[in-house]
Amino acid sequence: MKVHIHVSLKPGVLDPQGRAIHHALEGLGFDGVNDVRAGRLIELDVADGVTDDALDEMCRKLLANMVIENYRIERMDQKETA
Amino acid sequence: MKVHIHVSLKPGVLDPQGRAIHHALEGLGFDGVNDVRAGRLIELDVADGVTDDALDEMCRKLLANMVIENYRIERMDQKETA
Repeated sequence: MKVHIHVSLKPGVLDPQGRAIHHALEGLGFDGVNDVRAGRLIELDVADGVTDDALDEMCRKLLANMVIENYRIERMDQKETA
Repeated sequence: MKVHIHVSLKPGVLDPQGRAIHHALEGLGFDGVNDVRAGRLIELDVADGVTDDALDEMCRKLLANMVIENYRIERMDQKETA
């Protein structure tokens, strides 16, 4: 089963990478971009028996830094059958 | 309007970051993880007038390396009203 973990910086946390991307987009002539935030996307392929609790624990223990980051778990297969 | 850009490595491209995460998850005792791929999530806040073509061009010119990466554009506001 495919699971996508979206990790993004909490609001208010300084994001130099996002700011650099924003600056570069403006430099390339793209208008209308108000803000850019950079995060991580972690694609897991897990056995069907892996529970939501286990995924949650993976995020809290390793994948996200809970002090400055939020995470969102998206099960891709459930979404397709829903 | 919020737009999420999902950038992930193409299949077959070596992913040392994903492999390191996989190894670390196993080290922490998490079973059932078959594969891990690491990618980027770029959250844009753009003006409503920004077209899909413009977003596509941003990805091709700056946000994704088309040689080794795929990207997916997801308009968050459209999704909520759908």
